[in-house]
Amino acid sequence: MTRRHFTSALAVSAFAAPTAPRINGGRLREHLEGLSVYGRPKGGTFADGVSRVAYSDADVAGRRYVMGLMEAAGLQPRIDAAGNIFARRAGSDQTLAPVLFGSHIDSVPSGGNFDGDLGSLSAIEVVQTLNESGITTRRPLEIVVWANEEGAAYNNGLDGSSAAAGQTTPEDLNKVWNGVKKADAIRKIGGNPDRIAEARLKPGAFRCYLELHIEQGGTLEQAGIPVGVVEGIVAIDRYEVEIKGFANHAGTTPMPQRQDALLAASYLTVAVNEIVRAEPGRQVGTVGQIAVSPNVPNIVPGAVQLTVELRDLSSKKIAGLAERIRARAKEIGEQTKTEIAFRPAAHHDEALATPEIQQTIEGAAAKLGLQTRRLPSGAGHDAQMMARVGPMGMIFVPSVGGISHSPRELTRWEDCVNGANVLLETVRLVE
Amino acid sequence: MTRRHFTSALAVSAFAAPTAPRINGGRLREHLEGLSVYGRPKGGTFADGVSRVAYSDADVAGRRYVMGLMEAAGLQPRIDAAGNIFARRAGSDQTLAPVLFGSHIDSVPSGGNFDGDLGSLSAIEVVQTLNESGITTRRPLEIVVWANEEGAAYNNGLDGSSAAAGQTTPEDLNKVWNGVKKADAIRKIGGNPDRIAEARLKPGAFRCYLELHIEQGGTLEQAGIPVGVVEGIVAIDRYEVEIKGFANHAGTTPMPQRQDALLAASYLTVAVNEIVRAEPGRQVGTVGQIAVSPNVPNIVPGAVQLTVELRDLSSKKIAGLAERIRARAKEIGEQTKTEIAFRPAAHHDEALATPEIQQTIEGAAAKLGLQTRRLPSGAGHDAQMMARVGPMGMIFVPSVGGISHSPRELTRWEDCVNGANVLLETVRLVE
Repeated sequence: MTRRHFTSALAVSAFAAPTAPRINGGRLREHLEGLSVYGRPKGGTFADGVSRVAYSDADVAGRRYVMGLMEAAGLQPRIDAAGNIFARRAGSDQTLAPVLFGSHIDSVPSGGNFDGDLGSLSAIEVVQTLNESGITTRRPLEIVVWANEEGAAYNNGLDGSSAAAGQTTPEDLNKVWNGVKKADAIRKIGGNPDRIAEARLKPGAFRCYLELHIEQGGTLEQAGIPVGVVEGIVAIDRYEVEIKGFANHAGTTPMPQRQDALLAASYLTVAVNEIVRAEPGRQVGTVGQIAVSPNVPNIVPGAVQLTVELRDLSSKKIAGLAERIRARAKEIGEQTKTEIAFRPAAHHDEALATPEIQQTIEGAAAKLGLQTRRLPSGAGHDAQMMARVGPMGMIFVPSVGGISHSPRELTRWEDCVNGANVLLETVRLVE
Repeated sequence: MTRRHFTSALAVSAFAAPTAPRINGGRLREHLEGLSVYGRPKGGTFADGVSRVAYSDADVAGRRYVMGLMEAAGLQPRIDAAGNIFARRAGSDQTLAPVLFGSHIDSVPSGGNFDGDLGSLSAIEVVQTLNESGITTRRPLEIVVWANEEGAAYNNGLDGSSAAAGQTTPEDLNKVWNGVKKADAIRKIGGNPDRIAEARLKPGAFRCYLELHIEQGGTLEQAGIPVGVVEGIVAIDRYEVEIKGFANHAGTTPMPQRQDALLAASYLTVAVNEIVRAEPGRQVGTVGQIAVSPNVPNIVPGAVQLTVELRDLSSKKIAGLAERIRARAKEIGEQTKTEIAFRPAAHHDEALATPEIQQTIEGAAAKLGLQTRRLPSGAGHDAQMMARVGPMGMIFVPSVGGISHSPRELTRWEDCVNGANVLLETVRLVE
């Protein structure tokens, strides 16, 4: 008879906490602070964020620090051909596929100290906690720190996880950035581009892939909910829109005779916002980039190029939004005497989290007395590549103010600890 | 008894035409084509427009060509301290102030062959026509070709006429453009910057200033009216607007949490258009320049800078429009959770044409059987500087498609001839 039979989900945490293994919050914080010095602005503090762009010297130093933590947790890190760091803890049944979990430690320029770092260091903390509790899992556990998730280098993210999903092409390896070929950048971090195909994880290579990450949006914080259960990583459609009007003298061209491309672009930007918000759901739509010609105060703008980006868990939904936006653009074109042309510039399919894993994460949170909410991930993650290989689940924790990719990125320590404990419990439930 | 006693305004032209002096349309066209080669794109034709930027070698060559035409018309051109070309035809009463008329021959880069050229060469044609008709006017007639009207050089137009209005400052002369000090540029075209004050025309220096010019807008062409009588040159208010939102991840930031500066800018651009068009009149309002930060497809724009330019014959009217736009901006700021700040960046007062001269131009056109319409000039002209010195009037002729400052700038030859004849008749009526 176990205690579990007597207790409600909430009561479990109160009763179970003293004896169930829990991660060491102080140590996790210490490790996050320890990692933060690699790429920290000169003279700055933890609050000043980090620039640990993939393949940089700071990235190499940060990876060395993390491998040191793995060794301190009794693991032997190894670097695969793509530069990803793996470290395996043996299970009692070595014939079983491992539970794979981790994240990344590279950052955007002027990024924060939680994006990627939290999931990577919590993975090590889970192993350390199990070690200290004397628990041996049935399945092996495998920690991973993916290379170049952000894509600040080579303008191409999810690099390491793409290689693990068998998506890397020879052209990728020939890309040059800052004068360095990607193949050489991979060598710099200990990978072997000549054997990149060996980085591929075949179906069945893991029981499931788990990733703890900061939300990067403000949904959880606003709702006061400590744990997010990711339903999937959204599909993305990006369009490049070209608006042709006619540049003319801003003094001598009467209002009714104008063919003002920026006015058309403004109607379109408002329309994107209104159409995306018009229906229920968590879809988002953004006009983020605009170029105006000739772009001087005293000439009616003759041409505009802008981007429209749509995201939702459903590819079908954003295709429908795009259709409505294009129909509206046609009206705007007629109304403003401009020509508006849409060119599809990028499409990424949604990557859904495995329903069973979502339920398991909810069960883990319930054991800890933590409320959860299901939500999509609007940002891309290595998990979307792993979803191509096997079952996948992601745990989100709140981002203060919804800010990320900024030195102001912040997740409260108690939320970090909660997230790591949910990861620990999930690992124990799936193994 | 003269014929005039028997005839209506329209009939006058039919009866008077055979004997009244009329300009030589073929010669005017020949001169416009002759001038067009100075600054013509290599291998191009008249239809390929002109780049005769002030103080350039093409400008110097074009000025030489024009002075040759003046000499051919029996005049002795002289260059004042600011580089303006004057040429006087004696009147029967040399004690009277002259009638001053002309325009400019410099162009914007890739401009057309009518803006300025038509008024300058028509002025010479008027003198030639009077010579050939054996007519001596009571007042002296003075032709002027102003230096650097467009301001493509030194980013400062109406340069020669500003000097004639006593507006040139020592700082103006010290400006450097393309490595050349303006003082030296003035020397290049035969002026004397050390004596620039002597270029000033004192009140009473002329009976009135007249300028024939292409409309540069499409009002006359659309209405099918051959002659425009300019009511004045519009007042201009320019604002620099700064919009502060918050840059955030375009995937993870839910729509209701965004502080999208480009969305706010779009609402504002639409509002400027709507507010300017909401009331009757010929006022115009333009958002011509915009800068977005960070301006990438996958980040919600955090900051925008844009310009709002308002023009109308009434300073008071555009001040009222600006007030309404600012009030609307406040609402947009609240609605989009952004801060919108306006900074006045430039103000030019209106320069009204003298009512008596407007009536005289209408009388001249009536004598020729040409319909007229009063309209404001939305563009700046040397005439606005002369309005500071004495009575001023401007004659507009239609621009095909309202296009100017472009190789596609075009005024039909018959309209050029009509304009030159209206100038001739106006000169005869005011002298």
